Amino acid sequence: MICHPYLERIARCTALMKAAGLDVLLLTKPANMAYLTGDGRLCAYAMITKEGKVALGVPSTDVEDVKRLTCFDHLTGFEDEVGMIHSIAHHFKHFEIQEGSVGLEYTFLTHSMMGMLTHPHGKPEKVAAKDCTPVMSALRIAKEGGEIERVRAAASIAVAGMAAAVKALKPGLTESQIAAEAEYAMRQAGADEFWRTYVCSGPRTNIAHGLPTQRRIDKGDLVMMDIHPIVNGYSADICRTVCLGKPTVEQQAAYDLYLKAQQAAIAHVKTGVGMVELDEILHGIIRDGGHGDHLFGPTMHGVGIEFEEAPLPPGHAFFHGEKAPPPLATNVVIAVGNCGLYTGPWGVRVEDTVVVKPDGPQILTDYVRKLEI
Amino acid sequence: MICHPYLERIARCTALMKAAGLDVLLLTKPANMAYLTGDGRLCAYAMITKEGKVALGVPSTDVEDVKRLTCFDHLTGFEDEVGMIHSIAHHFKHFEIQEGSVGLEYTFLTHSMMGMLTHPHGKPEKVAAKDCTPVMSALRIAKEGGEIERVRAAASIAVAGMAAAVKALKPGLTESQIAAEAEYAMRQAGADEFWRTYVCSGPRTNIAHGLPTQRRIDKGDLVMMDIHPIVNGYSADICRTVCLGKPTVEQQAAYDLYLKAQQAAIAHVKTGVGMVELDEILHGIIRDGGHGDHLFGPTMHGVGIEFEEAPLPPGHAFFHGEKAPPPLATNVVIAVGNCGLYTGPWGVRVEDTVVVKPDGPQILTDYVRKLEI
Repeated sequence: MICHPYLERIARCTALMKAAGLDVLLLTKPANMAYLTGDGRLCAYAMITKEGKVALGVPSTDVEDVKRLTCFDHLTGFEDEVGMIHSIAHHFKHFEIQEGSVGLEYTFLTHSMMGMLTHPHGKPEKVAAKDCTPVMSALRIAKEGGEIERVRAAASIAVAGMAAAVKALKPGLTESQIAAEAEYAMRQAGADEFWRTYVCSGPRTNIAHGLPTQRRIDKGDLVMMDIHPIVNGYSADICRTVCLGKPTVEQQAAYDLYLKAQQAAIAHVKTGVGMVELDEILHGIIRDGGHGDHLFGPTMHGVGIEFEEAPLPPGHAFFHGEKAPPPLATNVVIAVGNCGLYTGPWGVRVEDTVVVKPDGPQILTDYVRKLEI
Repeated sequence: MICHPYLERIARCTALMKAAGLDVLLLTKPANMAYLTGDGRLCAYAMITKEGKVALGVPSTDVEDVKRLTCFDHLTGFEDEVGMIHSIAHHFKHFEIQEGSVGLEYTFLTHSMMGMLTHPHGKPEKVAAKDCTPVMSALRIAKEGGEIERVRAAASIAVAGMAAAVKALKPGLTESQIAAEAEYAMRQAGADEFWRTYVCSGPRTNIAHGLPTQRRIDKGDLVMMDIHPIVNGYSADICRTVCLGKPTVEQQAAYDLYLKAQQAAIAHVKTGVGMVELDEILHGIIRDGGHGDHLFGPTMHGVGIEFEEAPLPPGHAFFHGEKAPPPLATNVVIAVGNCGLYTGPWGVRVEDTVVVKPDGPQILTDYVRKLEI
């Protein structure tokens, strides 16, 4: 039974709920449940009232495991989806919530999951559903000291994974085999899991989401690796591009330009700076270098329990149900270098996880940034 | 440019669309797009009209890559979310669709993604959105010969992964390190990726979704491993439970009972059998063995591009936006043993991937089923 820091987070949450006009939250996104209760698992839910009362519903098999991990009294096990709906009804009744509004995770729930959580046998008729994404993002955006330490631990394991992948690179290996080296090293070093590993090579370095394939790496290929371990519930994000051999003059110049832009944006990270301003620094340098037409993707995003979370740049945020990000607060963690420079036949990208501090950036993923290995 | 078997699939799709009253599909789920077009990637869409016309929208970086993988002419690259919405509008206009209904993947789309696909700058006002989940499931449920070969290849790599994990087991290793062995072996053997690996041990074998942690495996622990490689776009699903040492009499008896029930259900698999009937065989044997209260989870599910797809058992199907499954057709692929026998202090489970044939089951994941190793 671990109550700290969850009680304090629940208190901050209820303040945000009141400001947003929410009477209760009904969460199923593991990242949000983990943040507020200490446990976030599949096929489970957390109900949080504006008075700070907390109820959890989990598969009946998991009740003892959840008791070990959380400190909340209202814990119900259910046998199946019907049982889940009934247990939601039970908690609405127990907390005497008959009207008002319930916050649901519109950016996480599919239509079928939404149907389960708002089923008339569960949710009282007069309780209206509203999106709670902005509340949860505001709550989680600036990290506590303990959270930063966890992201730091994830970052050091990300560096170990990247080092293992780069060390293993040789002609004839598949992209998937390179991913294997990074993932194996991360699990050996203490990662519980990882988000999907991206490894692409040769012409595939030009695609936006380069998931690994059976393509065999050839001499002279660029190889782009993007990895994100999960350590003690927190993530880190690192991407490196290297050349297996001698890069062309154009490749080296594009890499140098990208790195200059990414490092300049990072150098400007500090409390109070806006994401749009950082965007503009990165884009400006790449535009000035003649590659303005080759940029694709949001330049940066938040990192925490998820490897990609709030804050998101304004345009991207809007379409992902998030509010435009406020100026960066102290202890927000971001990954800078999420966009790529894609020339057509190949692309380059360098990404690092950085903590926002009053006096500047604190880079957590300190692994060599060099095209030629 | 690979046109076979996609043109034939599109023809079957348009027949199902007409029967369901859908004028056009707007797909973003990679599994569905891959089935119909040969390419399924993140942040992309496929539009398919009831006349069988196909348009694809992908990140502008990916256009050349997609051209290599598909044979459809209407291919648009977009720069960002706004560009995606405009390209959807363009294709609605190009296909002259001003009214009728568009099929969307309600069981895949989040509310924010739904907002993007039905944005008034994209979808014409008089085109109504409808769920296309049942159409896509009906389309994909029975596998073609080439698909079965791909699932078979995935199954043999799943067996290699399981063998590597079991071989590596020793006291002191973490659950995550066991997962590492399975995943590494699967990538070395030719997997492109894998769905999340489940490894749990000791008391954690009792939980419904045992994702790996830093728990160190001890002598005498049960260890449950559930793995699902992706090979050439297709998946397989295998789970084994083993004991690191001598199981107790109760553990051995529960394992023997579960295995008997799972194997009996598999033995009854053949064309025309209903999932409820198979459910009942598995449940009945476990009930008769005195563990009726210890069952949790759907007994089985389909396997194909996804490791968990239609057919789903009726109750489960309903809450996942699927129709109740028809009697099993020839060449449906299912994983049998998805439910666990959870006693409280520990659980056991054995799962195999099986093809439905007119004369009985064809088991694809032939790896030893034995508690004591």
